[in-house]
Amino acid sequence: MPVVIKIAKEKKGVLKMMNLLNQNDFKIINDNGITYPKGFRAAGVNCGIRLKRKDLALIYSEEVANACGVYTTNQFKAAPLWITEENLLLSKGKLQAILINSGIANACTGEKGLQDARETVKYVAEGLNIKKEYVAVTSTGKIGEFLPLEKIKAGVKKVIPELNVSGGIEAAEAILTTDTQKKEIALSFNVDGQEIRIGGMAKGSGMIHPNMATMLGFITTDIAIEGKLLQEALKGVVGKTFNMISVDGDTSTNDMVLLMANGLAKNRLITEKNKSYNQFLQALYLVSEYLAKSIARDGEGATKLIEVKVKNALSAGDAEKIAKAVIDSLLVKTAIFGQDPNWGRILAAVGYSGARIETEKVDLFLEEKIVENGQPIQYSKQMLRKYLRDSKEIKIVIDLKIGKGQATAWGCDLSYDYVKINTKYN
Amino acid sequence: MPVVIKIAKEKKGVLKMMNLLNQNDFKIINDNGITYPKGFRAAGVNCGIRLKRKDLALIYSEEVANACGVYTTNQFKAAPLWITEENLLLSKGKLQAILINSGIANACTGEKGLQDARETVKYVAEGLNIKKEYVAVTSTGKIGEFLPLEKIKAGVKKVIPELNVSGGIEAAEAILTTDTQKKEIALSFNVDGQEIRIGGMAKGSGMIHPNMATMLGFITTDIAIEGKLLQEALKGVVGKTFNMISVDGDTSTNDMVLLMANGLAKNRLITEKNKSYNQFLQALYLVSEYLAKSIARDGEGATKLIEVKVKNALSAGDAEKIAKAVIDSLLVKTAIFGQDPNWGRILAAVGYSGARIETEKVDLFLEEKIVENGQPIQYSKQMLRKYLRDSKEIKIVIDLKIGKGQATAWGCDLSYDYVKINTKYN
Repeated sequence: MPVVIKIAKEKKGVLKMMNLLNQNDFKIINDNGITYPKGFRAAGVNCGIRLKRKDLALIYSEEVANACGVYTTNQFKAAPLWITEENLLLSKGKLQAILINSGIANACTGEKGLQDARETVKYVAEGLNIKKEYVAVTSTGKIGEFLPLEKIKAGVKKVIPELNVSGGIEAAEAILTTDTQKKEIALSFNVDGQEIRIGGMAKGSGMIHPNMATMLGFITTDIAIEGKLLQEALKGVVGKTFNMISVDGDTSTNDMVLLMANGLAKNRLITEKNKSYNQFLQALYLVSEYLAKSIARDGEGATKLIEVKVKNALSAGDAEKIAKAVIDSLLVKTAIFGQDPNWGRILAAVGYSGARIETEKVDLFLEEKIVENGQPIQYSKQMLRKYLRDSKEIKIVIDLKIGKGQATAWGCDLSYDYVKINTKYN
Repeated sequence: MPVVIKIAKEKKGVLKMMNLLNQNDFKIINDNGITYPKGFRAAGVNCGIRLKRKDLALIYSEEVANACGVYTTNQFKAAPLWITEENLLLSKGKLQAILINSGIANACTGEKGLQDARETVKYVAEGLNIKKEYVAVTSTGKIGEFLPLEKIKAGVKKVIPELNVSGGIEAAEAILTTDTQKKEIALSFNVDGQEIRIGGMAKGSGMIHPNMATMLGFITTDIAIEGKLLQEALKGVVGKTFNMISVDGDTSTNDMVLLMANGLAKNRLITEKNKSYNQFLQALYLVSEYLAKSIARDGEGATKLIEVKVKNALSAGDAEKIAKAVIDSLLVKTAIFGQDPNWGRILAAVGYSGARIETEKVDLFLEEKIVENGQPIQYSKQMLRKYLRDSKEIKIVIDLKIGKGQATAWGCDLSYDYVKINTKYN
C-alpha cells in the first residue's frame, strides 16, 4: 500500500526536523494511531449522514482519562464544541469517550443545535454506561443544518460493538471529508523505564458541500499526568503546530483538538515540569507537528507542502507574524505552484506582516541564499527552478538578523484544483 | 467602443450608491480623467522598458499645485515613494509634475535605487524647467531590478513634447500592467458659483513578470484649497475607498495615491471645513470610490465585483474588520465564482474577523435576507442562484444590530484565471 509507505517515510522526516530532541528516544509505530496507547479502543461506521463513506467515529478509553481541548476562536463556535467544553468543566477535565460525525457541522443551529449535541452525548453515555460529562462530541461538515438524531442514535448503537484495539484506522477514515488520505501517527518512548504510548489522528481542510473546511485533531496517550499539566502542554504545543498551519486563512466554526491521557502506562504520575514532563511534551509535539503538517500537505488542491522558517526576529511573536503572512500570501502560494523563484513576493509579505524588521538586513533562503541584506544576490536560477519543480516540500527561510525570535509555519500552494474543489460542488 | 460605454454606465452606478450627497450636484464627464481639470496636461509613451506598450506617463500642472500623497504601509517601501515623500517635504506640499513608469518597480534596490529615483526626478525637472522638489516619481513592475536610466532619460525627452490637455487617456494607458482596461473618471461640480473640475486615473492589480501587483492612483483638481485640508481630505477618503479594496490581500511595496490641486478654478481659497470643503470631499470620494471599485472589478482573473456592506457594528473599526475579513476570504471568493449562495462561509468570516459581534443577532442579506439572528431562514435558492449567476456585482450586506458602525469593502471573486495569471508567466 503506497499510502502507508509514504506516511511511514514522512514520519521519519518529522523526527529529522525536530532537532531539539534525541530522535532515538522516540520510536515510530507504523500503521497505528489513537488505539496504540493502552486501554484505548475505537471504531468508525456509516450511520447514513453520508451516502456510503464512514461518517461516525467513536474513541473510548477503558479508564476515565484526564483530558483537555483547544477550540476555534471563531465566534460562531459550533454547538458540539460548547457542549464538549461544558462537559470538560463538569467533569473537572475528565473524558472517557469522544464521538465524531462528519457530514454536518451542527454550526449556526442555535438552541436546537445545543440540545441536539446534548442528545448525542446521552446516546453515547447510555450505550457505554458511563457518565454524560465523560463524553465529548464534535462534528464537521455542512453549516446551518441540524443533526439527524435518529441516524446518529442508530449509529451509536452500531459503532459501540465495533470498538476494538485496532479500530483507530476506521475512526481515522470516518472523520475525513475531502481529505485525500487519512492522517494518523503513533509513537512510543520511555519515562522512568516505563513504556509510554501516544497516538493521534486528524482531519484537514476538505470542504463539505456546500460549506467549509474544518480542522480536527484527536490525541490519546496512556501516560499518567495531572490534568493541569496536560492542559498546559496541549496549549503550548498546539500554538506551535496546529495553529501554525494555513490552507486558505479561513478559521472554521468547528476547529478542535482533544487530548486524553488515561494513565494506564502506570508511570509515576507526572505532577511537575520535570524530565518526564519534557519527554512527554516532545512526544506530544512530534505527534502534533506530524498531524499539522499532514493537514497542510493535504490542503485542498495542494501539490506541495510549504514550510516557512523565520529566524532572529525581535520576538517570537514577530517571527510568527512573518511566517503566517508569507504562508498566507496568495501570490507566494501561486508562485510555488508555478515553480518560480519569485522572491519579491516573499519579501513583500515580510514587509506587510506588521512585524518589526530592518529591511536592509533581511536575508532570504530558498534552497540557497538568494537575498542578502534586503537585496537580491547572484544565484543559479536553473538550480532553484529544479528545486521548485522536483521538491514536494518547499522550505523558505527568512533571517531577520535583529533578535532571537523564531517561528515555523506550514501551508500549501494554490492550484487550479483549489478553485475547482471550492466552486464545483454540485 | 464598448469599454467606454461600460465605464460611463458604471460612473452613474457609483453615484447611485453615494446616497449621502445630492447626485445632481456632480456632473460626470465621459471619456475624461486627469487632464479634465484646468491647467493639467499629460502624456504617455513607450520608452523601451516594455516591448511595445506604453510604459512612461507624465502629468504636468501649469501652476504649482498643492499636493499630497498616501503611501504603502509595506516596510519594503520602494525607492520612488521615498523620494516623492522627500520632495513633498522639501516643497512643503507642492508638486508640478508626476512621472510614472511601468515595467520595473525600483523596489528592493537599496541605495542605488534611491539615487536612480533622484536621477529621474532630475530629468523631469530639467526637461520642464521646474524645481526638483516639485517632481514626484513612481514605478510599478518587477521587484529587485534597477531602472534603465538611459531609457528613462530618453523617454522623458520624448514624453514632454507630447504633453497635452487631452493626454490623460495616454497616461492612463501607460500606467497599466495586466489590467484589462484603463481606469479613469472626471467630474465637475460648483463651489461658490464657480465650476470645479476633478479627475483621476488608477492602475490595479496586474502582476508584472515575475513579480507583484501594485495599486496606483492619481487625482487632479483645479480647486483652490489649502494644503493641510487637502491632505486631510485625501487621507480620510483613501481610508474609505482605496484602502477598502482587496484582490488578494497582498500589500505591494509600491502602492501610492497622489493628489494635486492647482487652484486654477479660481474659487475662493478653501481654508476651513465649510460647505465648499464638504462638496470637494464628496467629489474626491466619488472619484476615489470609482477608481477603487474599478481596480477591484478588474482584479486578476475576476469575473465579478463583490461589495460587502457592514451595518450597525459596535464601531466603524469593527465594521471595517468584518468587511475586510469577508472580502478577503478565499472560501467566499471561490463560492461567488462558483455562483453558490454559500452563506456559511460568509458567517464564518464574520466570526473570525476579530470584531465584537453577538452571533445570535447577525442578519445576512444576499439579494434577500437569508440569515436572521445567526440562523438560516427560508429563501428561494433558485432566485439567489439566478442573482449569483447573472449579476456582475454581488452585494453582501451584514447587519450586526448592536451599534452604529458602518463600512463597505470591495473585492472580486477567485477564478482559475487568477491562478493562471499568477503561475504561468514564462
